[in-house]
Amino acid sequence: MQKKVFQLLVDNTSGVLSRISGLFSRRGYNIESITAGTTSNPAFTRITIVASGDEAILEQIEKQVGKLIDVRKIWELEPDSSVYRELILVKVRASDKDRQPIVSVSDIFRAKIIDVDKDSMIIELTGNQSKIEAFLDLLGSYEILEIARTGIAGLKRGSEGVIYPDSIG
Amino acid sequence: MQKKVFQLLVDNTSGVLSRISGLFSRRGYNIESITAGTTSNPAFTRITIVASGDEAILEQIEKQVGKLIDVRKIWELEPDSSVYRELILVKVRASDKDRQPIVSVSDIFRAKIIDVDKDSMIIELTGNQSKIEAFLDLLGSYEILEIARTGIAGLKRGSEGVIYPDSIG
Repeated sequence: MQKKVFQLLVDNTSGVLSRISGLFSRRGYNIESITAGTTSNPAFTRITIVASGDEAILEQIEKQVGKLIDVRKIWELEPDSSVYRELILVKVRASDKDRQPIVSVSDIFRAKIIDVDKDSMIIELTGNQSKIEAFLDLLGSYEILEIARTGIAGLKRGSEGVIYPDSIG
Repeated sequence: MQKKVFQLLVDNTSGVLSRISGLFSRRGYNIESITAGTTSNPAFTRITIVASGDEAILEQIEKQVGKLIDVRKIWELEPDSSVYRELILVKVRASDKDRQPIVSVSDIFRAKIIDVDKDSMIIELTGNQSKIEAFLDLLGSYEILEIARTGIAGLKRGSEGVIYPDSIG
């Protein structure tokens, strides 16, 4: 089992996300996370998919997704030449005596406390997946009430930008 | 036109994302961003959707999505009682003389420089949407090479956690 991060540039149409997720579900491919958001060019949406499977399956995914209507480009974000970041919000149960230890753990990870309630706190953390997992491990002795994570956003290192295809074509 | 943030708790099945995005596309509903990620309970996936439309359309969306197979819960994250955060990576063209001014703008927003190349930089910023828009505006005088944004993750303020439904049912 391997994990790969694919990035797609797609036309900003309402059907494209449905076609992509439909392909994954029909083939039984496993999506770990998906994020879709606007780009600097409003005609296009950038989708980042984290998928797992063996090498052959992942190659198939890349080929078949690349052939879908409205998908203009698909490429792999390779770990060595890319930056990945994920954002996570964690709501943790915190009594008076828990608050300070939780703040200390958060400080180590440069996480931010963004909400404090009588008996809970919400913590915001960004990082790569291993940092986020390590943080959740350290919080393991407290009761986690809720977690919301965005999934991965990533870019290739270096000066290369995306060449947007002709939006008319 | 209004914008609403919906959060869904869905069974972690491969078809559910396809059903949700299919509903949006068939009805011509406009999804601004969508993020799907695991929760503290591996049986469930949490999906956050930002949708825009008039009040009646948004109510329809909430009702119809809530009826889909594998969708266990849908609720609105209301701005006053929730925290929203988004993560954005911006690759900007930066010659020697641009670098310092870009670092200064980033410092004001507590953004982090996460990659520096001979003639570009990658900046990471988290915040609510208005902070992110303000930052992009300020960077407007530089050439933006690429943007990757995660879409919104959010949680309700206060101690209430998600009550997970019985995963057997």
